[in-house]
Amino acid sequence: MSDCSQQKGILFSISGPSGVGKGTIVNEVKKKYPSFGVSISATTRAPRGTEQNGVEYYFKTNDEFDQMLAEGEILEYDTYVGNRYGTPAAPLRKMVDSGTDCLLDITIAGSLALKDKFKEDAVTIFVLPPSFEVLANRLVGRGTEKADVIEGRLAKAREEVLEASKFDYIVVNNELDDAVAKVEAIIASEHLRAFRNEASASRL
Amino acid sequence: MSDCSQQKGILFSISGPSGVGKGTIVNEVKKKYPSFGVSISATTRAPRGTEQNGVEYYFKTNDEFDQMLAEGEILEYDTYVGNRYGTPAAPLRKMVDSGTDCLLDITIAGSLALKDKFKEDAVTIFVLPPSFEVLANRLVGRGTEKADVIEGRLAKAREEVLEASKFDYIVVNNELDDAVAKVEAIIASEHLRAFRNEASASRL
Repeated sequence: MSDCSQQKGILFSISGPSGVGKGTIVNEVKKKYPSFGVSISATTRAPRGTEQNGVEYYFKTNDEFDQMLAEGEILEYDTYVGNRYGTPAAPLRKMVDSGTDCLLDITIAGSLALKDKFKEDAVTIFVLPPSFEVLANRLVGRGTEKADVIEGRLAKAREEVLEASKFDYIVVNNELDDAVAKVEAIIASEHLRAFRNEASASRL
Repeated sequence: MSDCSQQKGILFSISGPSGVGKGTIVNEVKKKYPSFGVSISATTRAPRGTEQNGVEYYFKTNDEFDQMLAEGEILEYDTYVGNRYGTPAAPLRKMVDSGTDCLLDITIAGSLALKDKFKEDAVTIFVLPPSFEVLANRLVGRGTEKADVIEGRLAKAREEVLEASKFDYIVVNNELDDAVAKVEAIIASEHLRAFRNEASASRL
């Protein structure tokens, strides 16, 4: 589209409580936007087999990872089996500058850090369950967790949903197709925001 | 939708230069949203035949119209054959409060006044032509105007498009179906904005 040719890329993020179905939504949306960029995590884990730096992961030493954290260049991270895995900001900045959109499935804290760092170049979406009963049923339905783990996740979810108002958009995941359509509407409309198209009138 | 049941109505407006096709876009979009409210103009013209106050028009005396203007209750108006026709704010306020959306086809000044008055309850869309050549061809194609009138409209259009950056969204009317889909995406996504859904998390 000629009206979007000069536009910066937009970093869309999707967050929400465990079991809300955000991973499924992200996968469905990504299928429809094959040109979206892919966010590659940074990790302190050593490469395995044929893994290459910048392909599966950005491989970092603990010192490098610490420095990136200190510089605010890691949006969020988690630790598994003694290794840290995080979302680096620099590759996202390159996507914005090259006009490439990206859809990130990240934690609530990660989305808030993304917005803080990228301002209007980031668009954050919070996925809510239709109700806590539905969320509980989905967590039970997975059949992979014990009752006390599910109770813990629900308690955490009740706290997490209070963060929804800090996001740009709220999508209730009542039905997958409907939620996917809503995210697509957000993606389409954000590209039409006037501040992203200030050059389009003068280019006429 | 349970997540929207408490939501205020949104006043969408579409503006743009003469010949850009905004009337056609508005008509197509309205067909898809039959629940949208209808904005009834206020006029100083006397009622004709079976015309009823509040149905075809709100009929006002010149003094009443002057007072509404002084109170900022007329968003825009034009004069035809000695009578004034304007967009009154009060019925729009009722729509917002009752949760009814509305799509207004109004002048550029009217959209800016709407935004100024209704703030976040108003969403303004500027329709741009793909190029001035296309706009000129559309104006010529109508076959209803003389060359000097068309020249005047084009000159005015060149000034008007500079106002586009004051709007919330910019839609280039390259192809009708595409422009209509873009307006629909804006309507859908605006309902998902977090500030319109702050109660949805606490209602869970």
